[in-house]
Amino acid sequence: MTSPHLTHRHRKLADLSKKQGLDALAINPGPSLPYLTGLHFHMSERPVVVFFSADHPPIIVLPELEMLKMKNLPYEIEAFPYGEDPASWGQVFQEAMRAGGLEQSRIGIEPLALRVLELGFLEAAAPEAQFVSGEAAVVELRMRKDQGEVAHMRKAAQIAQAALHATLPMVKPGVTERQIASELALQLLRHGSQSPIAFAPIVSSGPNSANPHAFPSDRELVPGDLLVIDWGASVEGYLSDITRTFAIGEVAPEFELIAEIVEKANAAGRAAVKPGVPAGQVDDAARKVITEAGYGQYFTHRTGHGLGLEGHEEPYIRSGSQLPLEVGMSFTIEPGIYLPGRGGVRIEDDVVVAADGIESLTDLPRRLQVIEG
Amino acid sequence: MTSPHLTHRHRKLADLSKKQGLDALAINPGPSLPYLTGLHFHMSERPVVVFFSADHPPIIVLPELEMLKMKNLPYEIEAFPYGEDPASWGQVFQEAMRAGGLEQSRIGIEPLALRVLELGFLEAAAPEAQFVSGEAAVVELRMRKDQGEVAHMRKAAQIAQAALHATLPMVKPGVTERQIASELALQLLRHGSQSPIAFAPIVSSGPNSANPHAFPSDRELVPGDLLVIDWGASVEGYLSDITRTFAIGEVAPEFELIAEIVEKANAAGRAAVKPGVPAGQVDDAARKVITEAGYGQYFTHRTGHGLGLEGHEEPYIRSGSQLPLEVGMSFTIEPGIYLPGRGGVRIEDDVVVAADGIESLTDLPRRLQVIEG
Repeated sequence: MTSPHLTHRHRKLADLSKKQGLDALAINPGPSLPYLTGLHFHMSERPVVVFFSADHPPIIVLPELEMLKMKNLPYEIEAFPYGEDPASWGQVFQEAMRAGGLEQSRIGIEPLALRVLELGFLEAAAPEAQFVSGEAAVVELRMRKDQGEVAHMRKAAQIAQAALHATLPMVKPGVTERQIASELALQLLRHGSQSPIAFAPIVSSGPNSANPHAFPSDRELVPGDLLVIDWGASVEGYLSDITRTFAIGEVAPEFELIAEIVEKANAAGRAAVKPGVPAGQVDDAARKVITEAGYGQYFTHRTGHGLGLEGHEEPYIRSGSQLPLEVGMSFTIEPGIYLPGRGGVRIEDDVVVAADGIESLTDLPRRLQVIEG
Repeated sequence: MTSPHLTHRHRKLADLSKKQGLDALAINPGPSLPYLTGLHFHMSERPVVVFFSADHPPIIVLPELEMLKMKNLPYEIEAFPYGEDPASWGQVFQEAMRAGGLEQSRIGIEPLALRVLELGFLEAAAPEAQFVSGEAAVVELRMRKDQGEVAHMRKAAQIAQAALHATLPMVKPGVTERQIASELALQLLRHGSQSPIAFAPIVSSGPNSANPHAFPSDRELVPGDLLVIDWGASVEGYLSDITRTFAIGEVAPEFELIAEIVEKANAAGRAAVKPGVPAGQVDDAARKVITEAGYGQYFTHRTGHGLGLEGHEEPYIRSGSQLPLEVGMSFTIEPGIYLPGRGGVRIEDDVVVAADGIESLTDLPRRLQVIEG
């Protein structure tokens, strides 16, 4: 990440914070931190917080043993390191917030990233400050991807597709969901995904495939199963997130039917995407196909979610959302039909809003593919 | 996980909560949730919270699309599902807390797991309840591993050791840190680690190895480098976490010297472990070796951390800790010496306190191993 890039983001964040009535933003490890600083920290029992404000260089509170990361940064930062005794950390937070003039400020935080751990240190260090959600500012900053970001996402999609291709030969009756998930994770790395991969692959078969968020089990594939595989790669922190559904040998006619319906719903969702369209309209377009086919009650989730540095982020493709889609927004289109106790189908693509509609980063065949035993 | 196991843990948690003056515990996705429920959820923008109290079966608030996970649970649970519109979630939290009689309770939470997102829903649903740290109760419950847990950790250590063995042949000058990290992640899966692996491996070479928490870079190994590899596997959620240091060809005499010192410090730390000894005494034993050799200022972190379902957990092996070690406690012993701008050495083992001292789950050679170019 070059310096002009990051300082541009700092300036933009300062503007957006101001618009939200915030004096500063307090960011802890999570995707926004590398996006804004180029720095990587694990979320751990040692809190790390960076304060961004318009009138002061970024201020960071961090463990002393991480101080080497402060060397040769391409922008100014003021570091407040603490030692290994947790009893000393509160004092360091206090000094950092005093240095930033933040004792009585209105400070935005990320409710999905900040833990009670960090909040406790912040509130104790500045009892007169106000801590409120700064999510809107961060979302506004990160939601439209630039060409560099889209290039990473495109590569993450290609790696994921190649990894599935390399995994499919081992998929057959008698193999377990876990074995497939492990092989797929391995092939993601083999094909160039960073570690950690985007998320632990979902591999769900037979009745398990009716659970959209199943964890892979030791269940062995048997002929007649539907098999849902949901997986993704990571490139420079940017993720792909794809789902395809397979038939193990011959499956019930109703399974073939729902697969066709979901394929049409996926196509309808993708066709609805263009700049200016409210996100909810994309959900409506996909859902209409499934509802009109009589399976509306079995499409139990929204049509998609934003994708980028996080597996789930804004914009959410949810019925009723008035958020107008804009060029550079990236998200999934993933309608599904889940028949409890029997099986499910989901088809998920990753798309980016383009001036003339969409770019689909994923192009694996969407039709139900039969795997012979 | 069998039902008696889980209901035993529920009862024990109720006792421990009561001792801490808590009416209930609110647990969100993180390691404590599968430990207590056998259920797996991703931490996401859709909050999941389970309430445990002595006088009511567990109560769970969760997305409707996760409801299939509630089928065939081997214990009673009361589920409050919510739909896809976030505007409706607050009401569901309120109903759940009312059903549990929790509106005016003193409720323990995990500050390292609970986010401002969940806290916001809890506080809004029960404005008269008190939310305080319930960490002590959870730590007390999880800190001593039973034989089943130790068996998983033993296997995770063996897988990690085998994966390193399979990776070493590709380690040579000209290979990058990232390439080694990817291959090691892949070999962890190949040798039976669950996905996700314990954590993204740290592979740091040359000057980077002086940074204890470096992220793998595109730096190529060159002769004269120290190379630190820190990696682990996951088995049923239980982790291993090992570090070994290598010399790429001939290295500076001082690098050989610090490697010998760290090896002795590691041995001294392990030798100090037995039931009844305060955790701080283990840190002191390892640190003394390094300090007496004149490198005390370059050992910048504590000697170790607890290990189990989390990469870092209690007991922390930190100077001054009075916590008496007990049979079944599991943690790392990982002294290091880091010479800024030049290189570092760390040697990390995973140990479990046994009646007669320790079981070391890891036994790879600790001596600085030279990799010829």
